[in-house]
Amino acid sequence: MQEKWVAGIDLGGTTVKIAFLSLNGDLIDHWEIPTDNSEEGKNITSDIAKSIDAKLKELGHSKEDVLGAGMGAPGPFDYETGIIFNTVNLGWPDNFPLKARLEADLGLPVTIDNDANCAALGEMWKGAGEGAKDLVCVTLGTGVGGGVIINGDIVQGVKGAAGEIGHLTAIVENGAPCNCGKTGCLETIASATGIVRLTKERLAERHTLSELHSLLDQEGAITAKDVFDAAKGGDELANEIVQFVAFHLGLVLANIANTLNPEKIVIGGGVSKAGDVLLDPVKENFMKFSFKSVAESTVIDVATLGNTAGVIGAAWLAKS
Amino acid sequence: MQEKWVAGIDLGGTTVKIAFLSLNGDLIDHWEIPTDNSEEGKNITSDIAKSIDAKLKELGHSKEDVLGAGMGAPGPFDYETGIIFNTVNLGWPDNFPLKARLEADLGLPVTIDNDANCAALGEMWKGAGEGAKDLVCVTLGTGVGGGVIINGDIVQGVKGAAGEIGHLTAIVENGAPCNCGKTGCLETIASATGIVRLTKERLAERHTLSELHSLLDQEGAITAKDVFDAAKGGDELANEIVQFVAFHLGLVLANIANTLNPEKIVIGGGVSKAGDVLLDPVKENFMKFSFKSVAESTVIDVATLGNTAGVIGAAWLAKS
Repeated sequence: MQEKWVAGIDLGGTTVKIAFLSLNGDLIDHWEIPTDNSEEGKNITSDIAKSIDAKLKELGHSKEDVLGAGMGAPGPFDYETGIIFNTVNLGWPDNFPLKARLEADLGLPVTIDNDANCAALGEMWKGAGEGAKDLVCVTLGTGVGGGVIINGDIVQGVKGAAGEIGHLTAIVENGAPCNCGKTGCLETIASATGIVRLTKERLAERHTLSELHSLLDQEGAITAKDVFDAAKGGDELANEIVQFVAFHLGLVLANIANTLNPEKIVIGGGVSKAGDVLLDPVKENFMKFSFKSVAESTVIDVATLGNTAGVIGAAWLAKS
Repeated sequence: MQEKWVAGIDLGGTTVKIAFLSLNGDLIDHWEIPTDNSEEGKNITSDIAKSIDAKLKELGHSKEDVLGAGMGAPGPFDYETGIIFNTVNLGWPDNFPLKARLEADLGLPVTIDNDANCAALGEMWKGAGEGAKDLVCVTLGTGVGGGVIINGDIVQGVKGAAGEIGHLTAIVENGAPCNCGKTGCLETIASATGIVRLTKERLAERHTLSELHSLLDQEGAITAKDVFDAAKGGDELANEIVQFVAFHLGLVLANIANTLNPEKIVIGGGVSKAGDVLLDPVKENFMKFSFKSVAESTVIDVATLGNTAGVIGAAWLAKS
């Protein structure tokens, strides 16, 4: 008898990451296919099903060896029916019955959750949060996503909107407009996009010597990584921006921790790769704004799974 | 055979509230005894046990009819051992084995939790949160307490410090000092004490006509209720203070709701009795700072159990 597997699927606007995992969370194989969002995305679920079938054949396994599949997708969903309300990048019409369609194509039970929640579950199962039952994950990428895990389960909220950590208000007055319609959201500051915006604003206001000025002139663009690199090199303006980001991120995370006192807060996403130049001041501000026993017990850590967190967390959904 | 009961105990610095409830949460009887904090509080648990025994006799019931007792006490605790680390008002030495002592005196299994969490459980079981599985309670009294319930259970946090809603930072710079050692905590603004402090500060700064000036002169003191009454009467300064409190409370509750998207946020405690003069602007700010689908789904409500919430929630602990 073959060992039982679960399949994890992480659906993005350009690629679909897919993996098989053992029930212990060992990664058996992982690969990706392009996301075909033409023709209202009608091929997406069948492409996934065909790719999984082909991979099973290649590995000498059959579908009977797979208990089920979990999928992370850019929500929001109705969790009970597995309907995805609306998506920007996938081509699907509103209220697309994602779970039902994938189950029909794949011939396996499917569980879905949003991508940020899957990343959080992945980090809980096999990453920086391994072994923690109460865990908050924040993903600093193009936007800021979040996942809250209490007692080993994702907190979904009454309308599936729990974990919207990117939309906690960080700047109360005169904050920058956010895609969500509010202003001053954490996402406007601590995402890669937010850091670039802040940098351009400061460069326009200030004419103090900064290597970021010449970089912007030369390249015509600037990235969050440029800002962190300049800060590491001692650039004053870059350092000021990093301190500003760290202040607000540390404050927001402290307020979340004062509410939940989780065992860990795991910071992932591209921006987290900046490392200690960001993490150290985030931790400092976190300690400053945390209730004493929270500061003593909730630990901030960097995500360890990188871009496999999503498929691993999705596979965890299939297992449970 | 008699119907089974559970006992709820709400331990305060001056009185102990005690109740018997049916397993459906109907209040059979409730009463209170003074808290004897003399002699390092050595009589507290035996007084409670004697009082319960006497009441059972009076009601013609025996201890066999009682499944167990739950107790809310001013934490923090070690939940596993039932040791209370330190208390200010009860006289007990540090690391007092509360659960073990009460079980020995009472001859019944005892479950303990902190008083704010018990109030939250009470509101979930039989109050404003009845039927909600995900619920946040905030109690605006002398201080600001909180309880977070996810999936029907209190979130305790890795060191028992979850739900410290009074210590979320509301004023980031130059906030008033809080008893916890931080500054600008919600408790410094939205507690009765905080409202009185804010009022006295504004009265000292401003000499615009306000009935609060004459009230303070006549009475030598002012209460949070005075401020709400004056605001209801159209006093401008009083209204400004209420708006300030509501702004910060609405903002903090919105950030909690953006994290958890609970079905309900229940506001209790003496300050909540102000009613719509406070609630309306709190809700307005809550909507303003909430992520769209959170604003559409998380409801803010006033607690309905008053000072029986604690014994009812404590009894719930005994039942589960």
